[in-house]
Amino acid sequence: MKKKSPSESKTEMTLMMLPSDANPKGNVFGGVILKYVDLVAGIVSKRHARNTNCVTASIDRMTFLKPVYIGNALILSARLNYVHRSSMEVEVTIEAENLDDGTRVRTGTAFVTTVALDKNGKPTEVPQLVLKTADDRKRFKEGYARMQSRLKEAGKI
Amino acid sequence: MKKKSPSESKTEMTLMMLPSDANPKGNVFGGVILKYVDLVAGIVSKRHARNTNCVTASIDRMTFLKPVYIGNALILSARLNYVHRSSMEVEVTIEAENLDDGTRVRTGTAFVTTVALDKNGKPTEVPQLVLKTADDRKRFKEGYARMQSRLKEAGKI
Amino acid sequence: MKKKSPSESKTEMTLMMLPSDANPKGNVFGGVILKYVDLVAGIVSKRHARNTNCVTASIDRMTFLKPVYIGNALILSARLNYVHRSSMEVEVTIEAENLDDGTRVRTGTAFVTTVALDKNGKPTEVPQLVLKTADDRKRFKEGYARMQSRLKEAGKI
Amino acid sequence: MKKKSPSESKTEMTLMMLPSDANPKGNVFGGVILKYVDLVAGIVSKRHARNTNCVTASIDRMTFLKPVYIGNALILSARLNYVHRSSMEVEVTIEAENLDDGTRVRTGTAFVTTVALDKNGKPTEVPQLVLKTADDRKRFKEGYARMQSRLKEAGKI
Amino acid sequence: MKKKSPSESKTEMTLMMLPSDANPKGNVFGGVILKYVDLVAGIVSKRHARNTNCVTASIDRMTFLKPVYIGNALILSARLNYVHRSSMEVEVTIEAENLDDGTRVRTGTAFVTTVALDKNGKPTEVPQLVLKTADDRKRFKEGYARMQSRLKEAGKI
Amino acid sequence: MKKKSPSESKTEMTLMMLPSDANPKGNVFGGVILKYVDLVAGIVSKRHARNTNCVTASIDRMTFLKPVYIGNALILSARLNYVHRSSMEVEVTIEAENLDDGTRVRTGTAFVTTVALDKNGKPTEVPQLVLKTADDRKRFKEGYARMQSRLKEAGKI
Repeated sequence: MKKKSPSESKTEMTLMMLPSDANPKGNVFGGVILKYVDLVAGIVSKRHARNTNCVTASIDRMTFLKPVYIGNALILSARLNYVHRSSMEVEVTIEAENLDDGTRVRTGTAFVTTVALDKNGKPTEVPQLVLKTADDRKRFKEGYARMQSRLKEAGKI
Repeated sequence: MKKKSPSESKTEMTLMMLPSDANPKGNVFGGVILKYVDLVAGIVSKRHARNTNCVTASIDRMTFLKPVYIGNALILSARLNYVHRSSMEVEVTIEAENLDDGTRVRTGTAFVTTVALDKNGKPTEVPQLVLKTADDRKRFKEGYARMQSRLKEAGKI
Repeated sequence: MKKKSPSESKTEMTLMMLPSDANPKGNVFGGVILKYVDLVAGIVSKRHARNTNCVTASIDRMTFLKPVYIGNALILSARLNYVHRSSMEVEVTIEAENLDDGTRVRTGTAFVTTVALDKNGKPTEVPQLVLKTADDRKRFKEGYARMQSRLKEAGKI
Repeated sequence: MKKKSPSESKTEMTLMMLPSDANPKGNVFGGVILKYVDLVAGIVSKRHARNTNCVTASIDRMTFLKPVYIGNALILSARLNYVHRSSMEVEVTIEAENLDDGTRVRTGTAFVTTVALDKNGKPTEVPQLVLKTADDRKRFKEGYARMQSRLKEAGKI
Repeated sequence: MKKKSPSESKTEMTLMMLPSDANPKGNVFGGVILKYVDLVAGIVSKRHARNTNCVTASIDRMTFLKPVYIGNALILSARLNYVHRSSMEVEVTIEAENLDDGTRVRTGTAFVTTVALDKNGKPTEVPQLVLKTADDRKRFKEGYARMQSRLKEAGKI
Repeated sequence: MKKKSPSESKTEMTLMMLPSDANPKGNVFGGVILKYVDLVAGIVSKRHARNTNCVTASIDRMTFLKPVYIGNALILSARLNYVHRSSMEVEVTIEAENLDDGTRVRTGTAFVTTVALDKNGKPTEVPQLVLKTADDRKRFKEGYARMQSRLKEAGKI
């Protein structure tokens, strides 16, 4: 299987937050943001793994640093950090932009672990990552560490 | 402010998973589940804090133990574990039920931290928890430990 | 087929009413409530009948006793009253909770008749009801009476 | 207040049934149909009462005579039968059209009672009905009878 | 194949504009209106072509003459103007009605070209149009002219 | 008002097409695509005009060159071509990506004209465009020509 670089699968999703995304006070639900985080992580995973069924195995603790409001643009930038066999770690940076004044704040960062499944629902290997830049290598190393901590927490290592 | 027990705010939400909740292979998106997790945590928080604006501060790492499919019932049981000033930890147990054969599996557990805000968007105190049972006390203690670990991770203590 | 008690299929659904559920004045549409009533009745029916296709045959007159507003929790409690061959009567109690002050009002009660269909779309028998309590027997008797009145109204008896 | 005829407010709504309107077997949920019934009844009521807040007071027993499937057109034809002070009875005829072969079946008829409210949420009088045709008069008389039976059932007369 | 008149497929869709259809200032998105325009054009096409897969080939320039607001009724009236082999031109007249005062304005007119596809995704002939009235003939002639201009613009003739 | 370059407002939106975006045969509705086209054009306009209410005045003829299917990613790339007083022309390039094999096809290009409105709903001037590159100048010139043709067609010049 040909290796692929993180830049081949990275994805940007810009959305406008509507009344149905928020509570009656105008704050966008954290869960609505996580729904889009998961969707964009799914696209990144499919772009890397192709022709498999990519499902979400876990989403790391996600802190909502700043509120997002109705009328804001929500900007999700997603890329692969780490790949091991059938597992992929996608990092999603979340920003909210006040479209009236242009203020843009980072509202959070999410680490989503996805798994590629074959037709029988069994994990199947995906292309390894080509690490071209120093940033790629740093992210891979950190992704490896997070994966170890996830496995330890789950009692698997 | 009168103390309240966790049983006064606990909430159960049973939903049917529809085609629009899933990828084209039939697997319900993890993010869709998290959207409902956050909604039910919001209801629990409002039931405890009343007359405030409850927003989600963080959702701990959430592992999707089993797939959920279109046509399954999704059962979310949510309750308060821990309360401190304006912060609340809601635990949400997630189960999927195959409505054809009655099989019910636990697909995950989520810990949602919410904060009560006043009219000016500032954190405001909520009622303390009355711990009536041994289970209440065990959950409170564990919730306290998780909160410490969150604060440590965030560099706040 | 093994008989089953009403408690084996009863279901509770708690939702938060969002701007898209209401008219521009803030009143939740009666039809939105009926959509959820029908969904929860479908879950109860599937939990009792399993492995069949449960469809709604009728919903009795439904009176909306009190308005429901955006931001309210809507609480639907559904259970089986009466079963005869392939037909089931599900009673759904509907309450609205003002999450700001905790006020909870009953906004209506719905009687939904569902039918279990086999793979060919033909009605198929479902388990009979075990009536364990006096309340179970009272409900069964009243459900029988309502079913007779529905059949009479439809000119079928 | 100037009287108005039923033809001034009658409304036709033709929709296409999508996967999100149906259960995984392809049958459109009865509750989804009722949501649209209520919406169209709301439009008819507003067209008659204008400049008030029209809310649904009740929906009479609704029998689903035939299944509706994904891909079908759903055709709702709604008109006023009866008006008394602030109350209106809207009749909604529901048909499903198989768009592949043109077969069109009546799947049900709904009687929706709506009430016009003023700015303070109090019932407010709406224009009386001008009955121009024999059919208008027949419907008014039948609507009156149904209203009496509703009031009797509710213990109000 | 038996010819059919435009009146056999004409369709009227009346909807109520909800908060989720509009931007936070209350203006309904043009794209939301176009979504419904396309849906109603799809119904008209299927009613004419039956038993084929009708897809949208193009939508002509669409000018939004007047704003549409939350709470307005949106009234779409759609009919066939022109048919040639597998291609159909549907004209959709769009009106917005202020339900509070009854004011009704035309907000635009859309010309949607659809194509009927067979099971293999290849264009397949649809019934020719019977032109019964002078208006039918005028519309057909104008539709023919617009089709020529579309083909010319696309470099196909 | 400080001039702004097209690159300051350009926006990319990547979405996954779900069952609720398509007809029962799996083809995504053209109108659903146009809904997203309009949303992304709205974001571009607000990013350029800030602090105004940007509404869609027209969408030029949009040809759907290739079908889009459930499970595809839809990629919308939007940028400003032309600005004159309160009017902006946004060009949206639409591509569909088969996530299984990576095939990516251009399915269309849309030209959306938006207008910035002030608090009283009157057109209000927006920043002029800084044209930095040859491509910027070419697009501006072509945008000007299209605007003239739109005004001519509308009988305004």
